[in-house]
Amino acid sequence: AVRELLTNWAAAVRAKDFQGILAHHADDIVMFDVPPPFESKGIKAYRETWNLFFSSQPEPVAFDIKRLDVAAGTDVAFAFALMQCAERDKDGRRVPLDFRLTVGLRKIDGRWTVVHEHHSVPAT
Amino acid sequence: AVRELLTNWAAAVRAKDFQGILAHHADDIVMFDVPPPFESKGIKAYRETWNLFFSSQPEPVAFDIKRLDVAAGTDVAFAFALMQCAERDKDGRRVPLDFRLTVGLRKIDGRWTVVHEHHSVPAT
Repeated sequence: AVRELLTNWAAAVRAKDFQGILAHHADDIVMFDVPPPFESKGIKAYRETWNLFFSSQPEPVAFDIKRLDVAAGTDVAFAFALMQCAERDKDGRRVPLDFRLTVGLRKIDGRWTVVHEHHSVPAT
Repeated sequence: AVRELLTNWAAAVRAKDFQGILAHHADDIVMFDVPPPFESKGIKAYRETWNLFFSSQPEPVAFDIKRLDVAAGTDVAFAFALMQCAERDKDGRRVPLDFRLTVGLRKIDGRWTVVHEHHSVPAT
């Protein structure tokens, strides 16, 4: 179920479908994103991170799960993944951008709910 | 128990105590660290990330938990934290370095065990 939730969420990102992106996220989600800010607290700030993401992405939007590991218990789960989106190089050409993703979930009222995301690239 | 484990682990980092750092980590841990490589798989590669960390840290080593959130179920848990270590600026002065940390744990043979860590700073 967690794997399906994350697969659908990634598809919603590619479709720029905000309803799908936010469908299984907690009001008090804490997001550590690739670009600043250092953290984004709450669903409104989380939504803003996607506006920033889409403003930086060449079309069509890439947001591909390359490898996904899930650890799911009865009511707490986490997942970590190797991910790929895209960016433009200095000559304006579309190039792939690999990043790391970790997601924390709680089962709330019987539904898996994302309460934490951590996206990053290694520091240079 | 997860909070105590992570508090003791951070203290072991500050003491450069490898036995303490590795005491509750799985053989197949997957680490996403602040600097490259993109990922480190397995306890031997994980240990190497600490050699790299200590080589970059001014003494005494800082590795301070500023805020810690824990979600623990019966046999799966995760935690995320605002952390602070240190670095030297271009004039060689010690300056604080804030970073983000997410940890995934499983209860294995009755003991909480770290199977995943994700450390990062926002991309610049």
